[in-house]
Amino acid sequence: MTHTPEKEAVIVTVKAVPSLFDELAAATQAMMPETREFPGCIEAHLLLAPEREEMVIFQIWESSEAQSAYLTWRAERGDFERLGELIHDEQIFRTYTLG
Amino acid sequence: MTHTPEKEAVIVTVKAVPSLFDELAAATQAMMPETREFPGCIEAHLLLAPEREEMVIFQIWESSEAQSAYLTWRAERGDFERLGELIHDEQIFRTYTLG
Repeated sequence: MTHTPEKEAVIVTVKAVPSLFDELAAATQAMMPETREFPGCIEAHLLLAPEREEMVIFQIWESSEAQSAYLTWRAERGDFERLGELIHDEQIFRTYTLG
Repeated sequence: MTHTPEKEAVIVTVKAVPSLFDELAAATQAMMPETREFPGCIEAHLLLAPEREEMVIFQIWESSEAQSAYLTWRAERGDFERLGELIHDEQIFRTYTLG
């Protein structure tokens, strides 16, 4: 018997530091091709609400393990630290299974 | 010159009435095929977090007009009213442009 891993969806909601929304959106946009090419990534979208200075990263992964490996890779490169200077307050990170 | 409408993404976050999560998820799941077939729907996913009794509907539309037409259609059928009995507090409805 083979184990079929459950797909995982991720919604990350981020508020930009006031006046730095465009910079945050551009920096995140530039990261999207790597995200989409990462092993196990089924799809990834960047969603923008400039009027609320809010940005959402939406991703679907083949498994939670693939998603974790991606987060580790980003962290090791220092990508989160770099974006952190553009982010206001805490980001909200939520995971879901696909219905 | 032709006008290219901007794609619109929608994230609806819903908390179930305690103990009615499974019922809410099943009722929403049953609606997804119609959503996906609605004119202008590019994709639609149902995301589940049973441990938080939380559900997210994620959709991408060809335009905000297509998304509005869909909401009107659902409202006229009474679908929101029917689901409303299973929902705890207000749902959070947010729209975004695609980055």
